[in-house]
Amino acid sequence: MFTINPIGKVVCERKDVEDDYWGEVNSVIEINSELDESCLDGIEAFSHLEIFYVFHLVSDEKVQMGARHPRNNLEWPKVGIFAQRGKNRPNKLGATIVKLNKREGRKIYVSGLDAIDGTPVIDIKPVMKEFLPREDVQQPSWSAELMKHYWK
Amino acid sequence: MFTINPIGKVVCERKDVEDDYWGEVNSVIEINSELDESCLDGIEAFSHLEIFYVFHLVSDEKVQMGARHPRNNLEWPKVGIFAQRGKNRPNKLGATIVKLNKREGRKIYVSGLDAIDGTPVIDIKPVMKEFLPREDVQQPSWSAELMKHYWK
Repeated sequence: MFTINPIGKVVCERKDVEDDYWGEVNSVIEINSELDESCLDGIEAFSHLEIFYVFHLVSDEKVQMGARHPRNNLEWPKVGIFAQRGKNRPNKLGATIVKLNKREGRKIYVSGLDAIDGTPVIDIKPVMKEFLPREDVQQPSWSAELMKHYWK
Repeated sequence: MFTINPIGKVVCERKDVEDDYWGEVNSVIEINSELDESCLDGIEAFSHLEIFYVFHLVSDEKVQMGARHPRNNLEWPKVGIFAQRGKNRPNKLGATIVKLNKREGRKIYVSGLDAIDGTPVIDIKPVMKEFLPREDVQQPSWSAELMKHYWK
């Protein structure tokens, strides 16, 4: 068992959990005052970051330990929780690659973060090309359908 | 504060922490018996997965809260811990995109996982194209130099 302490939080206009339409959301990540603000030094040399956060509003009873239909849509196959990115998952971890727009002191301004206002951030990693897939990415058709309106 | 429970562990031939030469390492991720093995159903339809794990051998005293030279190499600039991917970071979280080769029951066989034998796994997410960067990725030259022998 491990203990995770938030290193910051998300500030944005979206207050409610929604499945789609994250494309226009701009967010600020504010780093906690316990960390030295030098923890962000040099980050602006990267165009993209991966933000790690906790789906903090998910109750333990909602966590899925087996398989389910993504978004409870019966037209999509029942797949394991580790074969989907839904929030009701063991450990409730979220991770999303965002575009970095600006850094100011202990704040970073990003686009494309699918996390609501107040979400606890637990890590930030710079995106390096060498850590992206080195082969073609294949995925099932249900996942492309599910993503159709996600970034709109 | 949040509590994280491992959902599985890494089995591989590499027993010692090393910076480079992860390219030839093949690993098995074994899911814990508390989870239903259906948690992996349908995962083989994805070519790539992102594996989330804990750098469990890092002691609390080693965790960097500010800036440092990556790999203590003075030829590279001093950058914040969130502008690098080193293991001595708050919350000690690792995340790597791997190639999925095979699933058998509660085991998945992967290539390109930079974690030693026994590493606790805390989440697995399928890689979808829609979650990869939608713009060109820029990164500083020190990071490309650092990665030169990583996947060899």
